[in-house]
Amino acid sequence: MNIDKYPSKLLENAVNEFSKLPGIGRKSALRLVLHLLRQNTEEVNAFGNSLIELRNEIKHCKICHNISDTEICSICSNKARNESVICVVENIRDVMSVENTQQFNGLYHVLGGIISPMDGIGPADLEIDSLVKRIESGEIIEVILALSTTMEGDTTNFYIYRKLRNLNIKLSTLARGVSIGDELEYTDEITLGRSLTNRVPYESSVGQ
Amino acid sequence: MNIDKYPSKLLENAVNEFSKLPGIGRKSALRLVLHLLRQNTEEVNAFGNSLIELRNEIKHCKICHNISDTEICSICSNKARNESVICVVENIRDVMSVENTQQFNGLYHVLGGIISPMDGIGPADLEIDSLVKRIESGEIIEVILALSTTMEGDTTNFYIYRKLRNLNIKLSTLARGVSIGDELEYTDEITLGRSLTNRVPYESSVGQ
Repeated sequence: MNIDKYPSKLLENAVNEFSKLPGIGRKSALRLVLHLLRQNTEEVNAFGNSLIELRNEIKHCKICHNISDTEICSICSNKARNESVICVVENIRDVMSVENTQQFNGLYHVLGGIISPMDGIGPADLEIDSLVKRIESGEIIEVILALSTTMEGDTTNFYIYRKLRNLNIKLSTLARGVSIGDELEYTDEITLGRSLTNRVPYESSVGQ
Repeated sequence: MNIDKYPSKLLENAVNEFSKLPGIGRKSALRLVLHLLRQNTEEVNAFGNSLIELRNEIKHCKICHNISDTEICSICSNKARNESVICVVENIRDVMSVENTQQFNGLYHVLGGIISPMDGIGPADLEIDSLVKRIESGEIIEVILALSTTMEGDTTNFYIYRKLRNLNIKLSTLARGVSIGDELEYTDEITLGRSLTNRVPYESSVGQ
């Protein structure tokens, strides 16, 4: 079925807007719009306004560049956190992923992307200079590079490493290895090879 | 990964609103919201406003109850269409499906649902009385019942049939049969049985 004639311009507009979202085609968009039409006016107004307010009022933390409602985000302003460790991540979703592990009590630095020449994203588009300044001006002991284990992530890691290696800090990256619960048979060779090279004493693997 | 801590209340609101939509979970909602955050303010405002305008300004055609920007929809007000044939459908999506076939030049009547006791939808919730009034007051020759071939669709068909059988009109339903392009081997028995019972002269099957 080829949906192309809409009985209403308002409906067509809403479908057009929804179908601009990633992963939503015109048929799904129409389904979502018709769902909204069945809701109360107040609920749809709340939906529309939540998006408009979000885009107009959201801030980025001046320190870590994470999304925030305030000038300084709740993590950076939390005095209970360890200010001497910075975890460098690609985006806000990675902040949430690391937070959900409950294994990290330091601060973050959100790059806003990773170096990807294919997408036209170079080092200048990322918050790398502000990371260097932050380290130079603060009492930072360790920087953890928590980027994706892709080509782009590795490139970004290396770029940051070269920028930071002369500063007096400990620089680490996430451990690469076999995922917990994975069977060796189905682990790819590169990961398995790396986890052999970087093998850890049995005691420390049980310790965590 | 359990995403439950958002760094911003505005972000959380938008995610909550998106995840109320059917088929969109909290992870997809977050992905969509972060996508919107990367768009221009004007684009996000246009998106939000298109939904608010849709819900507040959309009308239902006074004749056929289809969604419309005007009191009388573009189909009902089109003088080139055959006003003596009414196609009864469940919802606006079915109007669009039938329109896309380009095989129908009459008018529509949108019931707004089908009789479904499981969902608490009875005949009184549908535009059946207005259909009867429309037939009684107009010059209608034929009513085509184009409802889903489900239990609920058949129930609704039968209810409407009982309401209309004493009126002087021709009452028909969509032909049921083997879909075009289907292999007989994979056609269910009920459909195949029905299409044997309702077999048509070869000439008329080629004719269409």
